[in-house]
Amino acid sequence: MNEKLIQLAKRRGIFWPSFEIYGGVSGFIDFGPLGIKILKNIENLWRKMFILKHDFIYEISTPIVMPEIVFEASGHIKHFTDIVLTCSSCKNKYRVDQIIEVENIESWSLDEIEKYIKENNIRCIECKGEFEKPSYFNLLMKTNIGPFSTDIGYLRPEAAQGIFINFKRMYEIARKKLPFGVVQLGKVQRNEIAPRKSLYRMREFTIIDLEFFYDPQNPNCNLINEIYSKKIRILDIESRNKNLGIKEISIETALKNKIVLSEWLAYFMYLSQEFIQKLGIPYEKQYFIEKLPSERAHYSSQTFDHMVVINGNPIEVAGFALRTDYDLRNHSIKSGVELVAERIKEGKVIEKFYPYVAEPSFGLERLMLCSLSLAYSERDGRIILKLPSEIAPYHAAVLPLVRKDGIPEMAYKIYLNLKEKGIDCVYDDTEYIGKAYAKYDEIGVPYCITVDYQTLNDETVTIRNRDDWNQIRIKVTDLVNILNKLLRNEIKFEEAGIPVKK
Amino acid sequence: MNEKLIQLAKRRGIFWPSFEIYGGVSGFIDFGPLGIKILKNIENLWRKMFILKHDFIYEISTPIVMPEIVFEASGHIKHFTDIVLTCSSCKNKYRVDQIIEVENIESWSLDEIEKYIKENNIRCIECKGEFEKPSYFNLLMKTNIGPFSTDIGYLRPEAAQGIFINFKRMYEIARKKLPFGVVQLGKVQRNEIAPRKSLYRMREFTIIDLEFFYDPQNPNCNLINEIYSKKIRILDIESRNKNLGIKEISIETALKNKIVLSEWLAYFMYLSQEFIQKLGIPYEKQYFIEKLPSERAHYSSQTFDHMVVINGNPIEVAGFALRTDYDLRNHSIKSGVELVAERIKEGKVIEKFYPYVAEPSFGLERLMLCSLSLAYSERDGRIILKLPSEIAPYHAAVLPLVRKDGIPEMAYKIYLNLKEKGIDCVYDDTEYIGKAYAKYDEIGVPYCITVDYQTLNDETVTIRNRDDWNQIRIKVTDLVNILNKLLRNEIKFEEAGIPVKK
Repeated sequence: MNEKLIQLAKRRGIFWPSFEIYGGVSGFIDFGPLGIKILKNIENLWRKMFILKHDFIYEISTPIVMPEIVFEASGHIKHFTDIVLTCSSCKNKYRVDQIIEVENIESWSLDEIEKYIKENNIRCIECKGEFEKPSYFNLLMKTNIGPFSTDIGYLRPEAAQGIFINFKRMYEIARKKLPFGVVQLGKVQRNEIAPRKSLYRMREFTIIDLEFFYDPQNPNCNLINEIYSKKIRILDIESRNKNLGIKEISIETALKNKIVLSEWLAYFMYLSQEFIQKLGIPYEKQYFIEKLPSERAHYSSQTFDHMVVINGNPIEVAGFALRTDYDLRNHSIKSGVELVAERIKEGKVIEKFYPYVAEPSFGLERLMLCSLSLAYSERDGRIILKLPSEIAPYHAAVLPLVRKDGIPEMAYKIYLNLKEKGIDCVYDDTEYIGKAYAKYDEIGVPYCITVDYQTLNDETVTIRNRDDWNQIRIKVTDLVNILNKLLRNEIKFEEAGIPVKK
Repeated sequence: MNEKLIQLAKRRGIFWPSFEIYGGVSGFIDFGPLGIKILKNIENLWRKMFILKHDFIYEISTPIVMPEIVFEASGHIKHFTDIVLTCSSCKNKYRVDQIIEVENIESWSLDEIEKYIKENNIRCIECKGEFEKPSYFNLLMKTNIGPFSTDIGYLRPEAAQGIFINFKRMYEIARKKLPFGVVQLGKVQRNEIAPRKSLYRMREFTIIDLEFFYDPQNPNCNLINEIYSKKIRILDIESRNKNLGIKEISIETALKNKIVLSEWLAYFMYLSQEFIQKLGIPYEKQYFIEKLPSERAHYSSQTFDHMVVINGNPIEVAGFALRTDYDLRNHSIKSGVELVAERIKEGKVIEKFYPYVAEPSFGLERLMLCSLSLAYSERDGRIILKLPSEIAPYHAAVLPLVRKDGIPEMAYKIYLNLKEKGIDCVYDDTEYIGKAYAKYDEIGVPYCITVDYQTLNDETVTIRNRDDWNQIRIKVTDLVNILNKLLRNEIKFEEAGIPVKK
């Protein structure tokens, strides 16, 4: 990530490394007032597009700490591991891919890796010591529930398991009708071996898991027609194997050619692409990469990662997995409680079956980091964060030109009125006007409203556009209306008022 | 808690015990779609009253998992303990107050407790076995950060520590001006020994910690005049010792007689009382109890618990602690980083000092449980949840009288329009009208709007009042306006339209 952006984030209280006074711990970030506002805006946009638009998607909230049996059933105790290399001399530990730069090394067996290390005489990058035998390291954070050391608990690595074990209850809430989705948004922990200073690999982050349950005998998506002709950019396994690069295909082609195996998965992939565009990340900087069988999580029969390219580096911001009936089946076996749906004919239950699951999963903080990275720009040595209005920390700042002659009072009155009318704005008389403009450019506020001497005469104010620094003058009485139109991109800035000459 | 309410909560997807299919684990609750909506409404009301009203209160978000050193400095490793009794025979473990019913037993020494057990021949309540020597049990949930077993982490038991260790950064964000507050809202874990089935003692819950920093040489609250004559109900140490019962005194008296030692603490106590009234919990069911020195947390020099009386049982819903400079001082010593404010004279720093801290702290789920308990009522054998409109899961339900003749279409159109105008409503044509009314009474929706044959003729609908089942008829075009007035209690129901005869 851009070092200047990181400095800006610290300076303006967007985010910074956690536990700074104690030297920091990799993989943890704190969020300040502005960061929280941006995160909330992204969350709300997600809710609007994924939950509020669909009356068959329900929300749930379950604990972070869960008993061991859940992860025995889900397979995480066995499979949620990384391969770790330990230096026999300095005792440093590394994730195998940090040491051996071979594609897909994580899928090799421990013996293969050991052999490779010996043959290539690979040594510790810190002290040149020899490595011990490679081993598996489980990424679940372990704890105890209650005073008995035998009552082991784990911090959830995904919000999905809290959904699966509640299938019965949610099926009732959905009036026993498939398909339906259950979403959970909350904190998860993953005990990464060596996250270093990367902001993208965090040990604690906010996940949005949507588990969409459908009948495998009736897997069609009733909304697919709306998006049949829409395009996505995709790098499927065939293209990867043949080095063909990303291809642009329609949803129709993706489904007909069985590149995406589920209509619901395809539907959510397209929705995700639209969502991420609204975060200011253009279509051409996005693509979906299909995971090889050896790269997929243990529960998935097809997986796509949704990638965003930041300064040439692809970053995974979402995952789309066909979890089939893996989780419901395993929890049913482990618990003895049947997590099944019913097939009904003429009022009678004729069959019980495990629904299939299509899962979109998002990392909230990563989405923000990608948005910020792509919003970052400079002009005349100053930073402008060109965030989309919908996720900017404020819609507007109201600024008095000077701190006298009744101008601050007038500005404050305008600010209160905007706020009451639902414009998320801030009042600021702590800086000179030029410095104030620079400040609100830096934190991505799209419009600055300035109250000056002319306001006292003719009840007009100027609006300044963050992205080109142009200004227009409009009547105070038109302000709410014009701002709303600007925020919704319903009007061009230059046409929204009388241009102010520079 | 009322068993019928618990059943209702399960049936309607408000909340239920976690991990049900695996037999459950005490101290954990899941929240369904309606529970999440109510929790969010309570959270938003809190934000409105505590954050948005004050431009000197900032929000922060820091990790749940924190390194050991934080809790060494904060004193939690040493002091955040309960006394546990273990049966030497059946090995059951109990919190000492579950076995010995002596007031304030938690403050006794282990030797005193051992002696008391012997003298009174106290035995295990399960198997009558003898108890082992009493011991301390730390309530922090322990885990590991990264692959080294020496890197110990704990799940935070309060959100406050993430604020204290960030004091320097937040002081900058507050432009180095005291007083200011920092709030954090998030999940915390406490490894309760034996929470049993109580919904009030949870191992994981959402805390709202507000740390308010002020200059001990200038401790006055600039907002205190607004509330000087307001009354609070309080049971201070003197009243407790002399068995005088709860007294009703003004904020002025509380401060002048040094019953509450800080103006800011008193300010937030009164604000909390107002807030909790808005949750439907009347003034006379609330009081503040001052903790004895032996009952207080290790960091506090004065503590009040905000109690709500539910069916005769006092429940703690918030705490108010004077943390003085305990935390900032200890983190400064431990980290070597000075967490101090500056006293400035003529542009020069003349002194550095530790600010004092007044802390209001709330448990979000408990607030909801108290609201639900007091909202619970019955009429003709049916349940009505009389929740205040502001926290009800929906403002209104739109119901077609019958499922034919264009009535559902008309109802759906009305529903969409209400939604667009910001009325949080639900459309439902799945039940017959009587059953639908019962359903929305049960989940606390204050108004049902019914579309019937008359609607097709004269464009009027009925509004039904949850609390008395009375109905009025009004024009569809007046609906948004009237509903908004009803929701804000600006108009009496009977006067809002033409009463419908029963």
